[in-house]
Amino acid sequence: MPRVVDHGQRRGEIAAALWRVAAAEGLEAVSLARVAQEAGVSKGRVQHYFASRDELLDFAAQQLQLRVDGRVRARMAAAAPSSPLGEVRALLTALLPLDDDARTDARVGSAFLIRALGDERLRETYRSGDRLIHGAVAERLAAARDAGELAGLDPGREATVLLALAGGLAESVLLGDTDGVAAVAVLDHQLGRLRP
Amino acid sequence: MPRVVDHGQRRGEIAAALWRVAAAEGLEAVSLARVAQEAGVSKGRVQHYFASRDELLDFAAQQLQLRVDGRVRARMAAAAPSSPLGEVRALLTALLPLDDDARTDARVGSAFLIRALGDERLRETYRSGDRLIHGAVAERLAAARDAGELAGLDPGREATVLLALAGGLAESVLLGDTDGVAAVAVLDHQLGRLRP
Repeated sequence: MPRVVDHGQRRGEIAAALWRVAAAEGLEAVSLARVAQEAGVSKGRVQHYFASRDELLDFAAQQLQLRVDGRVRARMAAAAPSSPLGEVRALLTALLPLDDDARTDARVGSAFLIRALGDERLRETYRSGDRLIHGAVAERLAAARDAGELAGLDPGREATVLLALAGGLAESVLLGDTDGVAAVAVLDHQLGRLRP
Repeated sequence: MPRVVDHGQRRGEIAAALWRVAAAEGLEAVSLARVAQEAGVSKGRVQHYFASRDELLDFAAQQLQLRVDGRVRARMAAAAPSSPLGEVRALLTALLPLDDDARTDARVGSAFLIRALGDERLRETYRSGDRLIHGAVAERLAAARDAGELAGLDPGREATVLLALAGGLAESVLLGDTDGVAAVAVLDHQLGRLRP
């Protein structure tokens, strides 16, 4: 039996508690004391892993990117060996809050957006994530075009349209304006329009 | 000279201070004390008009709807006597953060979104605004179809696509991923696609 505390596991438990608080109550509610209460540990214990609220929130922002990235990769792997357009569809649907995990992430992501607007470093994290995903979509659209799956369109521009559409739909699903099935149907409608 | 304090004007000055705080620092930063400081009045003075932080935020949410509604109407009036599709374009561009006022509103709107997710009443305010605007776009798309300006498409579905697209683009402009000119070009690209 290991006699030392598993640092990574403890940190992970505290991060999970932070996640629950942020998703249910927004980032406003995240404090060292509130997260300690949620995790069932002392505030001192939380401070052992995260020196300040800002450190806790930075860690959460990194976790969010990893979670979204993981979901995108999983959906795209599940879509293989489909067509390039099938991969684009898998990627875009991974950005919608279609299950509890994705819904939690979308809530936390929305909470981070307003924080990112006032924080250059966090905004750059956000933007570099957006650029990566835009590049991935544009690359697959170019492959779809080369495979004759796509009308003679500009892959970069169509990637911008599709990602903005997915972003707007994600907000709509989160608010309950649109359900998940309808949101995917709207994406499919737009994807269908790109075919020659 | 009036000897009584102009209640509406004082309330308006406090609301303007609230707006500046919310846009610059997010709703997290909004408190009776912070807004009083920004307005250059005492906290007691603020409490004279708004009994609690929640009342202040509810007032701000109503103001936000009025401001967006006013901007949409102004843009649509300026687009007249254009075509129905020209009106749709005016309405959609009014939703993008293309000037300082619209940018401020978009920041405050983003801050409210996460609050709305945890507050059924505020979420319903949000949703009813979205339904109104969706109805306005769908109605004009139907008129465009009847005028032969539009391919044989479902106006309700295309309204959903266009509004989700505008919502995603607004976030992108806010984050600095896309500039306003490029965002309008993306909207025009999608509108162009609807023509027969």
